[in-house]
Amino acid sequence: MLSTMQDVSLTVTRILKHGMTIHGKSQVTTWTGEAEPERRSFAEIGERATRLANALRDELGVVGDQRVATLMWNNSEHVEAYFAIPSMGAVLHTLNLRLPAEQLIWIVNHAADRVVVANGSLLPLLAPLLPHLPTVEHVVVAGPGDRSLLDGCTPRVHEYEELIADRPTTYDWPEIDERSAAALCYTSGTTGDPKGVAYSHRSIYLHSMQVNMAESMGLTEKDTTLVVVPQFHVNAWGLPHATFMTGINMLMPDRFLQPAPLAEMIERERPTHAAAVPTIWQGLLAEVTANPRDLSSMSQVTIGGAACPPALMEAYDKLGVRLCHAWGMTETSPLGTMAHPPYGLTPEQEWPYRITQGRFPLGVEARLSGPAGDTLPWDGESAGELEVRGPWIAGGYYGGAGGEDFRPDDKFSEDGWLKTGDVGVISPDGYLTLTDRAKDVIKSGGEWISSVDLENALMAHPEVAEAAVVAVPDDRWGERPLATVVLKEGATASYADLRDFLARSVAKWQLPERWALIPAVPKTSVGKFDKKVIRKSYADGQLDVTQL
Amino acid sequence: MLSTMQDVSLTVTRILKHGMTIHGKSQVTTWTGEAEPERRSFAEIGERATRLANALRDELGVVGDQRVATLMWNNSEHVEAYFAIPSMGAVLHTLNLRLPAEQLIWIVNHAADRVVVANGSLLPLLAPLLPHLPTVEHVVVAGPGDRSLLDGCTPRVHEYEELIADRPTTYDWPEIDERSAAALCYTSGTTGDPKGVAYSHRSIYLHSMQVNMAESMGLTEKDTTLVVVPQFHVNAWGLPHATFMTGINMLMPDRFLQPAPLAEMIERERPTHAAAVPTIWQGLLAEVTANPRDLSSMSQVTIGGAACPPALMEAYDKLGVRLCHAWGMTETSPLGTMAHPPYGLTPEQEWPYRITQGRFPLGVEARLSGPAGDTLPWDGESAGELEVRGPWIAGGYYGGAGGEDFRPDDKFSEDGWLKTGDVGVISPDGYLTLTDRAKDVIKSGGEWISSVDLENALMAHPEVAEAAVVAVPDDRWGERPLATVVLKEGATASYADLRDFLARSVAKWQLPERWALIPAVPKTSVGKFDKKVIRKSYADGQLDVTQL
Repeated sequence: MLSTMQDVSLTVTRILKHGMTIHGKSQVTTWTGEAEPERRSFAEIGERATRLANALRDELGVVGDQRVATLMWNNSEHVEAYFAIPSMGAVLHTLNLRLPAEQLIWIVNHAADRVVVANGSLLPLLAPLLPHLPTVEHVVVAGPGDRSLLDGCTPRVHEYEELIADRPTTYDWPEIDERSAAALCYTSGTTGDPKGVAYSHRSIYLHSMQVNMAESMGLTEKDTTLVVVPQFHVNAWGLPHATFMTGINMLMPDRFLQPAPLAEMIERERPTHAAAVPTIWQGLLAEVTANPRDLSSMSQVTIGGAACPPALMEAYDKLGVRLCHAWGMTETSPLGTMAHPPYGLTPEQEWPYRITQGRFPLGVEARLSGPAGDTLPWDGESAGELEVRGPWIAGGYYGGAGGEDFRPDDKFSEDGWLKTGDVGVISPDGYLTLTDRAKDVIKSGGEWISSVDLENALMAHPEVAEAAVVAVPDDRWGERPLATVVLKEGATASYADLRDFLARSVAKWQLPERWALIPAVPKTSVGKFDKKVIRKSYADGQLDVTQL
Repeated sequence: MLSTMQDVSLTVTRILKHGMTIHGKSQVTTWTGEAEPERRSFAEIGERATRLANALRDELGVVGDQRVATLMWNNSEHVEAYFAIPSMGAVLHTLNLRLPAEQLIWIVNHAADRVVVANGSLLPLLAPLLPHLPTVEHVVVAGPGDRSLLDGCTPRVHEYEELIADRPTTYDWPEIDERSAAALCYTSGTTGDPKGVAYSHRSIYLHSMQVNMAESMGLTEKDTTLVVVPQFHVNAWGLPHATFMTGINMLMPDRFLQPAPLAEMIERERPTHAAAVPTIWQGLLAEVTANPRDLSSMSQVTIGGAACPPALMEAYDKLGVRLCHAWGMTETSPLGTMAHPPYGLTPEQEWPYRITQGRFPLGVEARLSGPAGDTLPWDGESAGELEVRGPWIAGGYYGGAGGEDFRPDDKFSEDGWLKTGDVGVISPDGYLTLTDRAKDVIKSGGEWISSVDLENALMAHPEVAEAAVVAVPDDRWGERPLATVVLKEGATASYADLRDFLARSVAKWQLPERWALIPAVPKTSVGKFDKKVIRKSYADGQLDVTQL
């Protein structure tokens, strides 16, 4: 039996129309480094987005689902591009300005971007790439910056303000299938080529509704959100769309992401919410410790992108700013969990919940896949790889070698769930705690051993400076842990001492048999343990391993 | 370009699974009239719903999209039915226990209900209907009530608790197309036959997400909502689904809808929110004025179903209870508008916003259709018929004469928008004020005159007891207003006096030329002006009309 309801598609266009009318008075404030920031109402942003769409179609010839890239900071022009491009049926491709040049080139060519909208301040990054970007026919430049850097380049160059100046303020927006692509974002590709995630109109719409639900961020037009998380990073966690849904005001830092200007804009503009990765909050804390500023307007801060050190949360608690953990990935739009504790607990009781990754919202189904591929219970103890399903979760990647979408086996289960690559446990009341990356887990005789747990237990020994545990092949168990340890100066602990110490906090069958002292744990460029190097040293016989 | 996102359907099943796991500890509390109410966790409700689905399939043979009706108060068993029936692919048909017997019979036969789940306390209503309900093969009885009333009836009779007692606690829920029907609700049919609105899984899912967004009700598991609005009335405004999405606790009054028990349950259980029609709040106010009770836990109350007298809102303001207007219809799921004022206003500035019907949420597009079928501006002055579009707005009715869905011209525009039958204005900032029913508006020379405006202006005259204004045919203008007036005892005002009085507040071209004194305004059974009767009296020449 079919329903009798209207068949109305969930599109970015509808979010735009709603925001620019019902919430037309809400504002986007963009930091300029001048005495006064730039302020534009949603009504103005909507009108300018409409003019941009006209310009893209009539002047630049954008048709169909062509890709229009942005290489921009968080600012009002970037918000305009966010709405104009998908609403006309084209695909917004946000470029990550932190990527190495060769990755950016690879990505633009893979997406076959026809247009790049760039901030003037990013032309030093863009200009040298252009000779390698044959699909790019137009560059549109917004905001301050030296235009002469583009002299002699092949694409046609347009000034953003001139381009949109005399365009119509209406557009006959097409009806769009909600399952078609609205935005494209590539993973940063630490292993292998970057992979494109193509968000649909539907996924953006549903994800942004969830962002607005009270159990997630739950903001209203009373609020102003400081959007530090870049618009090129998973659609700024959905905030530009979420704000147009409910009239939340946005404060955009543009290129002023250093701790001092961030502290100044918080004190002056008094946002009630902010969203950023932990390093931003580390830097800001150091800044306001040295140069006190009032941050207390931010009653709620969403922190994600990496695990947040508990000490950082405690430090902000003292400033009246509550950090709330969120977990997600490019493939999850990104809202996967948020760590609001259950209601009615004391601060002490809340703490164990606050340091988890959080709970799954409606729309994200989760299961833990165990070592044998079995689904594990939510008992707070059984560790498995987290797999997720939902309308804003990727089911594949855009355009592989043959141009087709592709679904690598290590990323998707046979029944289509996303394998997150994260290993963790889920409590009976649905809180996720991640313990490991799947590739770092030790698969020993049908059970998993967390390398991170062993490392943390070892590093608690007073004579241990650092310790890294990796899986090594074992004839009987498949894999067993190898403990590599850096002792402190003058330490006298033996391997047996360390093993006995470990045995106090770890199950006997998890204790490593193989031990090696090393001078330092090898690290990646961003300071993480580089376990590939340790595994290779072991395989090549370059470690002095003692068997206990 | 297709997106790479997973194709996951929006279904009631997913709401159920989410609520019974992630929010398994939240509670449904049902008033019983005993010392202690009945309390069930969402986990229990979910398990019992699962057992109910097994029983409906295995014992009662419910298959496919068969209709399972409920004739029930608001209680936990009704919540179980809400989730079990649509999740198994069947259609929940909620029966309005306030309808006359002949309408109930018509509706059950039209929907071809196979099963009726009924509260024992409603058997006096159900039993006499059964001989007229040939499609009903099973009656399932829940809660207290005299079962002997069903002795000798044709359908098989089942005890709810016995029926679900030994059933499996898992069910292999089918994957359901989100556009298929989940629930069926008939309009009460004041004119013509009742009309069935078939809500889809998709419409329920999206509507309930919107209910949970902060700009609508925005409740969380911190909250308890007192669901006075019946579950047979447009899915209790989406609250049972919305609560399972975010863990909001529910307080269910069952059959205890009188002011005294309502006041008692509010004082004892301290809900933070409630939803009901104005008459409930009128009765409750009288009750607590006579017998004081603390209602102040209810910081927010959603009031809809009829216009709320401003005096009632003011009276509740004094009790610390804020009534918030909402507007909707069976055809709009029902959330159409909510009257949260813009942020940052004083109470005096908020007032003009609070007495409107409110603003449209994301998902409800609105336009005003003028006398000539043109779309009118949102200027706060141009009055037109409100038409709405969106994923939870009806686009037709279920099963007309030939069994096909049907779309009467007076209910749907050519391009598929719902004609609400309400006439009003929309302010530039998107607030709707309804002034009239479309059928009561006077269509004079291409302009509309509000009968309600004229009546209110007339009734402000100190010598007027009542006044009703109706449209009558006019050769030159198409229609013109006829003013029928009831004067107070001993009044001396002439028609000319009344017209001069009107002219102070109404444009000259709107002034009635035709006047008649009547002894009383004819009323409908629910006390509304019965304008049909006045129009007929005029047409039949039974009014003593004076032409000015």
